[in-house]
Amino acid sequence: MALSTDKISLKHLLTVEALTDQEVMGLIKRAQQFKRGAVWQPKKSQYFVANLFFENSTRTHKSFEVAERKLGIDSIEFDASTSSVTKGESLYDTVLTMSALGVDALVIRHSEENYYNQLIQSKTVHCSIINGGDGSGQHPSQSLLDLMTIYEEFGQFNRLKIGIIGDITHSRVAKSNMQLLKRLGAEIYFSGPLEWYEQKFEVYGHYLPLDELVPKVDVMMMLRVQHERHDGKESFSKAEYHQEYGLTVSRSQKMKHAAIIMHPAPVNRDVELADSLVEGLQSRIVAQMSNGVYMRMAILEAILEGRV
Amino acid sequence: MALSTDKISLKHLLTVEALTDQEVMGLIKRAQQFKRGAVWQPKKSQYFVANLFFENSTRTHKSFEVAERKLGIDSIEFDASTSSVTKGESLYDTVLTMSALGVDALVIRHSEENYYNQLIQSKTVHCSIINGGDGSGQHPSQSLLDLMTIYEEFGQFNRLKIGIIGDITHSRVAKSNMQLLKRLGAEIYFSGPLEWYEQKFEVYGHYLPLDELVPKVDVMMMLRVQHERHDGKESFSKAEYHQEYGLTVSRSQKMKHAAIIMHPAPVNRDVELADSLVEGLQSRIVAQMSNGVYMRMAILEAILEGRV
Amino acid sequence: MALSTDKISLKHLLTVEALTDQEVMGLIKRAQQFKRGAVWQPKKSQYFVANLFFENSTRTHKSFEVAERKLGIDSIEFDASTSSVTKGESLYDTVLTMSALGVDALVIRHSEENYYNQLIQSKTVHCSIINGGDGSGQHPSQSLLDLMTIYEEFGQFNRLKIGIIGDITHSRVAKSNMQLLKRLGAEIYFSGPLEWYEQKFEVYGHYLPLDELVPKVDVMMMLRVQHERHDGKESFSKAEYHQEYGLTVSRSQKMKHAAIIMHPAPVNRDVELADSLVEGLQSRIVAQMSNGVYMRMAILEAILEGRV
Repeated sequence: MALSTDKISLKHLLTVEALTDQEVMGLIKRAQQFKRGAVWQPKKSQYFVANLFFENSTRTHKSFEVAERKLGIDSIEFDASTSSVTKGESLYDTVLTMSALGVDALVIRHSEENYYNQLIQSKTVHCSIINGGDGSGQHPSQSLLDLMTIYEEFGQFNRLKIGIIGDITHSRVAKSNMQLLKRLGAEIYFSGPLEWYEQKFEVYGHYLPLDELVPKVDVMMMLRVQHERHDGKESFSKAEYHQEYGLTVSRSQKMKHAAIIMHPAPVNRDVELADSLVEGLQSRIVAQMSNGVYMRMAILEAILEGRV
Repeated sequence: MALSTDKISLKHLLTVEALTDQEVMGLIKRAQQFKRGAVWQPKKSQYFVANLFFENSTRTHKSFEVAERKLGIDSIEFDASTSSVTKGESLYDTVLTMSALGVDALVIRHSEENYYNQLIQSKTVHCSIINGGDGSGQHPSQSLLDLMTIYEEFGQFNRLKIGIIGDITHSRVAKSNMQLLKRLGAEIYFSGPLEWYEQKFEVYGHYLPLDELVPKVDVMMMLRVQHERHDGKESFSKAEYHQEYGLTVSRSQKMKHAAIIMHPAPVNRDVELADSLVEGLQSRIVAQMSNGVYMRMAILEAILEGRV
Repeated sequence: MALSTDKISLKHLLTVEALTDQEVMGLIKRAQQFKRGAVWQPKKSQYFVANLFFENSTRTHKSFEVAERKLGIDSIEFDASTSSVTKGESLYDTVLTMSALGVDALVIRHSEENYYNQLIQSKTVHCSIINGGDGSGQHPSQSLLDLMTIYEEFGQFNRLKIGIIGDITHSRVAKSNMQLLKRLGAEIYFSGPLEWYEQKFEVYGHYLPLDELVPKVDVMMMLRVQHERHDGKESFSKAEYHQEYGLTVSRSQKMKHAAIIMHPAPVNRDVELADSLVEGLQSRIVAQMSNGVYMRMAILEAILEGRV
């Protein structure tokens, strides 16, 4: 009974701001139940979820796909390059089509920030939207799986010290994470190239030189250098980035013993962190990917339960 | 009992000419049953249908895929760009492979008109072929879903006045529709640029200036301007096309009150019809897409029931 | 009981050398059982197998996919061109991701010979690997389906005379086949352009001029001219290849009456063999494709049964 009142139901999942703390914790706990083998009891015999990735992805895309299959959902894969998008069809009309075909929910990754606004305001589109990443905007399912991984490790967020290091400006997940973690009581510290840091992040935490940050934090959240979003004018080589802003082996030895290393992946090995650390004892990078499947099951359940 | 004797069984679905009136009406009625929740009782426990789209598609492709899943069929997706087609393998040998793998039926869209002739004559290929569009030839499943949508609206075809407007020469569905609708008793009127109209259409109906046609018809069947099939020598801009041959808002106000607007989509908004009309009260464009799933279920059932 | 002791269990399938004769024969017999309708009784309720084809494929790829569906496995399709591989993610990190997502086994085709070494040595990767072709290395599932097709025809391998003709140097399957067939007691004869023949093949059989080989052998194993692996410096045209090294109609008339023609396909018709022979009475090319599904079911079962 307690369980059924705890059940989270969402119309869409677009940003982390739209989630209450109770919803965040509810999703984390439900994801943990799925990890321990819980099974969804759907109301309808067949649900359709379509995955529309207009930007390339391995982890997020395949993680949603595995989550859908584990829930017994029919996944529809959409490949823009062989679709009518090549004839000039807009995102809106593509989504309208999916809605007309009877698809219940869409996982969408798209390069345009806030691409979803037009979709959720439409009276003709009936699909629930799960944001799989919007431009340099947000990536809420990644943020939630990060939180699940931290919660699994430490059992709470209060007073946890989290370092967010690297290309913060271009990172969707950094922006989602700093908001959520701050709200849940964690203390945020930033580091990395100053050209990728903005004044507006100050409301969530403070910038520290990397060597000051490392021994202080419980979580080293390394961000990917997103070469594909840069214009090539960066003033450092890969090796220089690693030495100045990366988690080198010698820096890692100054971490707290119980501290963990996270990264949304794909990792640029020997850039953001040393190759040998990726699968090392303090890394939770593989755990993040595994937890992603269970978190996405929780999200999909919450979305599909929220449908009439 | 009546129902089982009505059941349609087809070897292939290639053109609308090959269908009897009884088969057309049987498919429409079966599609309506599926829309009301009817369930297929297959003879075998597992059927395989492969979707081979050599031309880009969202609606037709995903509509067949959803239909297959609703029937419990195993869909096999074929992507020419990652297949042995890139090593020079022909359509025939690709289809021969699918047949050897045990695939029951193939939905094929291909740029070559009548691509299916060699396939159905082969003694080694055992797949049923469902034509998802052949060059500038036919598109029978789209035609059948259009008829279903009209029948759903008016309950019959006799004496219905249908306007077919636009790029008739390049439209597969226009050619399928004019034949079927004429046979079933409808009166056809054509309009649009004269350079996209051919004398041979006269056996099915007559050309009228657009402003004469609009107040006369029960169905405004707008055709897509297929930029991808043109050579760029058209003598009008998009705005000019809309003013001269498009359904503008002011023209739409001269339609009969009970008349409906149809379009095979993707719509070029503000070209073939005004943006605001696409999801308007008289539009059945979303209904066409929804009905497409049920019509394709009826087609797939008829094809798979027709297999030994 | 006898059956369960015969059951083959494999950790990976990488090369044919790693298979014992008993395993080869066990897989052939199990594939024949699947062909007669045997059903797998899996230990777990859900298995995930991902198909990672970094090189183009129709037969191998779709054959594995159909086999997976027939066994009730959840297939995950991986398309490198829309994945994080485009952001520079390595094969190792892609596979690590699949492992973290809970995928049980991977079917991989990759252009790098022995690509699998790093994967199977990893302590973090838990997937079983099924080699779907490595560069100019091996193609064990094709080899096993070839053996199944020969065994189905002749009931044994001992003293069978097998001709392997054509582009042996670039053929993964030729290398796998010559090893296995020799071990199982067959006599191997080679023919084709000398520039595609290497001294090291002599341990398996001997080179003969084609017109000497044809009347001698029980199996004409024609190899595909792999235009995509050549540098265009070959000294013959397609027509010249056919006349000198191909199975022309007139050569085919000199074959033993009970001899069969095999080819891994796609066939370059009128190059390796005359167009009319591909689907002729002595050809087993379609049977090879059909048998491929059953052999891959046997392989997948052996791999998944081998997992803890």
